[in-house]
Amino acid sequence: MYAINYTERPEEEVTLAGASKTTVRWLIGRNTGAKTYAMRLFKIAPGGKVPLHSHDEEHEIFVLQGRAKLLGAPEETNAQKDDVVFIPSNVEHGYDNTEGTEDFRFICVIPLLNKDE
Amino acid sequence: MYAINYTERPEEEVTLAGASKTTVRWLIGRNTGAKTYAMRLFKIAPGGKVPLHSHDEEHEIFVLQGRAKLLGAPEETNAQKDDVVFIPSNVEHGYDNTEGTEDFRFICVIPLLNKDE
Repeated sequence: MYAINYTERPEEEVTLAGASKTTVRWLIGRNTGAKTYAMRLFKIAPGGKVPLHSHDEEHEIFVLQGRAKLLGAPEETNAQKDDVVFIPSNVEHGYDNTEGTEDFRFICVIPLLNKDE
Repeated sequence: MYAINYTERPEEEVTLAGASKTTVRWLIGRNTGAKTYAMRLFKIAPGGKVPLHSHDEEHEIFVLQGRAKLLGAPEETNAQKDDVVFIPSNVEHGYDNTEGTEDFRFICVIPLLNKDE
């Protein structure tokens, strides 16, 4: 068992093609206890975005701060502080904070399928 | 895909023996998209606690608000806002907000082993 401030985890740039001003911290990954799912914290600065993409891993998300366009939703949808977002496997999704004025931060849990994290 | 405010999920009393002033919302459960792990939000009001207990399900936790004693840690440890807490399978744990002055709220992700949620 452990309890640490999230800032103790390294903050890394997200390198997905088209992503900008976005970082991720692996809060609980395979090397820090996770067995079948991992908890990450993403931060998208104002002006940044993660473009539409998809993958096998579903997402269970809780928004901590800010507001962003939720790309790929059936109609234009925003995700904002205190929202729960669920993105099923292989559904295109993205987050657009290009018009935002504060950081958009969220917890994102994914299954560990073939990841080394 | 969906995005909803967490308060749209029903808030239920935690009925674990010895628990007091504690509620849970199943944010993403088996009936709302979860396949192998579920996201819940717990709130322990000042004066409340969840006593020591253990189970097969590990916990991946992110603290949203407040501060509580983390029971079962090797030495007396607090968990507070912005902390990441990991509790392995079958490790005794609990949360004590009996001396707190504000709600202790946290996201807690668990595997869906034999749960119906």
